[in-house]
Amino acid sequence: MTADIRATVVRYLDLVANATSGAQIAALYAADATLEDPVGSPARKGTDEIAAFYEVLTTRRRTTELLAVRVAGSEAAFSFRVVSGTGAEQSVIEPIDVMTFAEDGLITSMRAFWSPADVRRGA
Amino acid sequence: MTADIRATVVRYLDLVANATSGAQIAALYAADATLEDPVGSPARKGTDEIAAFYEVLTTRRRTTELLAVRVAGSEAAFSFRVVSGTGAEQSVIEPIDVMTFAEDGLITSMRAFWSPADVRRGA
Repeated sequence: MTADIRATVVRYLDLVANATSGAQIAALYAADATLEDPVGSPARKGTDEIAAFYEVLTTRRRTTELLAVRVAGSEAAFSFRVVSGTGAEQSVIEPIDVMTFAEDGLITSMRAFWSPADVRRGA
Repeated sequence: MTADIRATVVRYLDLVANATSGAQIAALYAADATLEDPVGSPARKGTDEIAAFYEVLTTRRRTTELLAVRVAGSEAAFSFRVVSGTGAEQSVIEPIDVMTFAEDGLITSMRAFWSPADVRRGA
């Protein structure tokens, strides 16, 4: 299960960088999954709300890099870098995400730890 | 609250490195707090069980280093390095911990993401 979870985290960050629709990323989630990004904000629930959340991403140029991943039980915590936009519009953020997984490998919840103070602006 | 949470995380890692009793670390926790280390193992609950968990640490030489901390709402996720023992007995682990906090700044829960495969042995 640990290897499957690691593979899903890698696939997730690949899609966060390269997906052309929010639905492609939402397909990694279980149908009734929840998403809380950032932690403390209202949770989105279900495929449609999760796809809509990621749809916004797909309009911007962006790259992702996995910094560290720790798998324990059926959960994972991982830190990663997202660079989005270009030039003066560029922003860099390094969140820590926590995900839980179902037996079939689908993501059942995602919670993203970051705050606006963690965003770096400019090239 | 963000500054208070960051300060508690720093204080926590200082005590994980330097406390002379488990009770000193348990004092950062609320009376009915829970501790799950690693995630997926049975949770310890309350000051006595939490103090007993940390007591084991205090018998070994160890250092800690905060690598990254992200505060969101009344929670924090942070990655850190723990080096314990010396020479051939040395082990290095870099967990990602998630903590929740009460209004008064005490830790209400801690969950540690790591697995035995993440432990590096030897100097």
